[in-house]
Amino acid sequence: MRMQDIERKVIEWLDQHSAKAIRLLKRLIGEKSTLGSEFNAQAVVLEKLRQFHMDIDVWEPSIKQLKQHPYFKSNRSDFHESPNIVAKKTGAGGGRSLILNGHIDVVPEGSVKDWKYEPYQAVEENGKIYGRGSTDMKGGNTALLFALEALHACDVKLKGDVLFQSVVDEECGGAGTLSAIMRGYRADGALIPEPTNMKLFIKQQGSMWFRITVKGLSAHGGTRYEGVSAIEKSMHVITAIQELEKVRNARISDPLYDNIPIPVPVNIGTISGGAWPSSVADRVVIEGRCGIAPHEKPEAVKLELENWLKDLEYHDEWFKRHPVQVEWFGAQWLPNDLPDDHPLISVLQSAYQKMKQTEPIIEASPWGTDGGLLYHAGDTPVIVFGPGETKTAHQANEYIEVEAMIESAKIIALFVMDWCGLHTDGEDADAQVNKE
Amino acid sequence: MRMQDIERKVIEWLDQHSAKAIRLLKRLIGEKSTLGSEFNAQAVVLEKLRQFHMDIDVWEPSIKQLKQHPYFKSNRSDFHESPNIVAKKTGAGGGRSLILNGHIDVVPEGSVKDWKYEPYQAVEENGKIYGRGSTDMKGGNTALLFALEALHACDVKLKGDVLFQSVVDEECGGAGTLSAIMRGYRADGALIPEPTNMKLFIKQQGSMWFRITVKGLSAHGGTRYEGVSAIEKSMHVITAIQELEKVRNARISDPLYDNIPIPVPVNIGTISGGAWPSSVADRVVIEGRCGIAPHEKPEAVKLELENWLKDLEYHDEWFKRHPVQVEWFGAQWLPNDLPDDHPLISVLQSAYQKMKQTEPIIEASPWGTDGGLLYHAGDTPVIVFGPGETKTAHQANEYIEVEAMIESAKIIALFVMDWCGLHTDGEDADAQVNKE
Repeated sequence: MRMQDIERKVIEWLDQHSAKAIRLLKRLIGEKSTLGSEFNAQAVVLEKLRQFHMDIDVWEPSIKQLKQHPYFKSNRSDFHESPNIVAKKTGAGGGRSLILNGHIDVVPEGSVKDWKYEPYQAVEENGKIYGRGSTDMKGGNTALLFALEALHACDVKLKGDVLFQSVVDEECGGAGTLSAIMRGYRADGALIPEPTNMKLFIKQQGSMWFRITVKGLSAHGGTRYEGVSAIEKSMHVITAIQELEKVRNARISDPLYDNIPIPVPVNIGTISGGAWPSSVADRVVIEGRCGIAPHEKPEAVKLELENWLKDLEYHDEWFKRHPVQVEWFGAQWLPNDLPDDHPLISVLQSAYQKMKQTEPIIEASPWGTDGGLLYHAGDTPVIVFGPGETKTAHQANEYIEVEAMIESAKIIALFVMDWCGLHTDGEDADAQVNKE
Repeated sequence: MRMQDIERKVIEWLDQHSAKAIRLLKRLIGEKSTLGSEFNAQAVVLEKLRQFHMDIDVWEPSIKQLKQHPYFKSNRSDFHESPNIVAKKTGAGGGRSLILNGHIDVVPEGSVKDWKYEPYQAVEENGKIYGRGSTDMKGGNTALLFALEALHACDVKLKGDVLFQSVVDEECGGAGTLSAIMRGYRADGALIPEPTNMKLFIKQQGSMWFRITVKGLSAHGGTRYEGVSAIEKSMHVITAIQELEKVRNARISDPLYDNIPIPVPVNIGTISGGAWPSSVADRVVIEGRCGIAPHEKPEAVKLELENWLKDLEYHDEWFKRHPVQVEWFGAQWLPNDLPDDHPLISVLQSAYQKMKQTEPIIEASPWGTDGGLLYHAGDTPVIVFGPGETKTAHQANEYIEVEAMIESAKIIALFVMDWCGLHTDGEDADAQVNKE
């Protein structure tokens, strides 16, 4: 068969079997897989993968081992019943290898009364499937598995290896993907179908959390001048952070960010301090999220923020005697930065164009993915592309459009065939595969 | 006996029986009398009062009745086992009546490990007695009872009535004193021996608590420009309050405040907002204490602050659409304002001078007392004078100097005799009493 015929066959199969994808997504949503409860959802993934004749590796990440890695940031104490899955289809050789990575964990559903339908019931309505994780990112995972199912059903042979990864812990900092990297899984390229609304996200902003403690001196509110208000002092800290955000963003010249008001925000998310209305607050704690630009190293960004706040001490005697304390805590999402001319982009562009007859939108994402780890810890270049819109992620009434999910599966199937290369009996097909 | 002889006799009795005062104070400290647990300490007071042949009135304040009074601010649901005591010594007639008011309740001891000695053991060391409530204000109460005991022991007859009040709930807003007022107890003057370090506090700052809720609009921290940070907005509110404090204090011209950096502070005591480091905070709550100048009415001060914050809406579209919410919550301490020429001052000055051979310091206090209620709700002018320093009140290792307590009792005994007038058989003494 010629390459075009194989592609057509795969697309037709996907068109005819969309009910399979819908059923799979509903089963995945039905298995609530919040932090520590990923087991049952992974069992659904496993059941599907076993049909594809792939080499399957299932393991519970080891905290002890993960702790040895500088990028490990999770607060988890163990991964008992939180297994990772990697399924590998070894290629015939001579092609590029590919990781297809999706996280199985979802964020909590929040208040159930805010939901139109029960969040794990996966109700379908007007072409949308509602439920926690539908968009972030069981819809994307379903697109991956549906594409793999089509390749298997159509008996497509690839030259390069395909590694499907269903990982835990993305929402908490990526320990699942990091564990897969530490287990040796790498590839020539990776695709993560996070909800980009079918745009190509070639760069991702990273982020990390900071906690700043500002000291004061307690006193009775009636003689507040005998104390030093940590609340007033924290206002200086907040102003300094706002200035730092301006300085950091003024440096960004990447045209991908031309239409973004603040390419790499520094968000002050929480503030808490003082113990009594009529006492002077002796301590305020500010927590926030510092964006990391695609080209930046987290350590350099940390140092910049710490030094910036150190500067307060030159202008304020109080800060000199009581420097603000900066901690970096909780999760960290590494940035990702794909060169403009990387073949992941052109191959995915071409697959997109074949299906949609138009050019895809290329953007930088304001949020991180496991792509940062795959690239920085695993030397695997990453492109992010998937169905669903982030605006519904992490919200009540999260949903995904079925059509977008199926369309993504088609584009991904074409992309896999093109990236890994088709192993066929005919020379024609071979010639086509190596065209780029 | 001539007046001077009676005075000498009373002072000598007090000198000779200081062990009685020490024993009483230790017993009072020994009975922990935090909110709702005042019963046993009141029993000690009662036992002492029964020796003085006074008319004793003991009652549990009625929440139902108190709730009808506009100045009732307590959060208590009942006063079960929290009785008030008023003991009245009816005078012979023709003299001024006097309320001697002290609160029996103490604030909690806090962390016991911060205390040198167990907080209710009343350990005496180097002329000081340590314990929760020693300074605030069982030392002052002891001075009152010790003075009354001396007058009784020396068989002193007064013209005016003396009403000793041991009240509950001062630390939570004064429901005990308010209940006594509602029960009809009033007088020509009152003395409250709160810890003034033996200064005469002729004015007291009042205060009340506010809670301000500032709204924002949540968004992901990576696209924080899509939200509105309640933390940033709360900084405008805090700045506005700081400006209001300046304006309010610029109006105060009373020379008593000449050396006070901020006569009537507005203290922002707590701040709390935001739920997640990488989300834009959609709500911040600020709590604080607004000082009420001696001459001010609480309702007018509330209105001023509310209108001041309303002004934010003219400068900021967000506040126009989402006005800050102001609540007045918790306790309220009314201010007190004694005219400079009030006889309570001159009579106490004279008693002080007799004992100390020097002029007392006259000041305005930065904190409220039950004097605000006695004056505003009970039409009874109040002077505040007592042993102990406020800096040890509400702290670990609270203590009182025994000598100051005994000396205060002497000054108070002289003050009572002078204020109420001595009823003697000789004309000489009568003439002396009515000299002012």
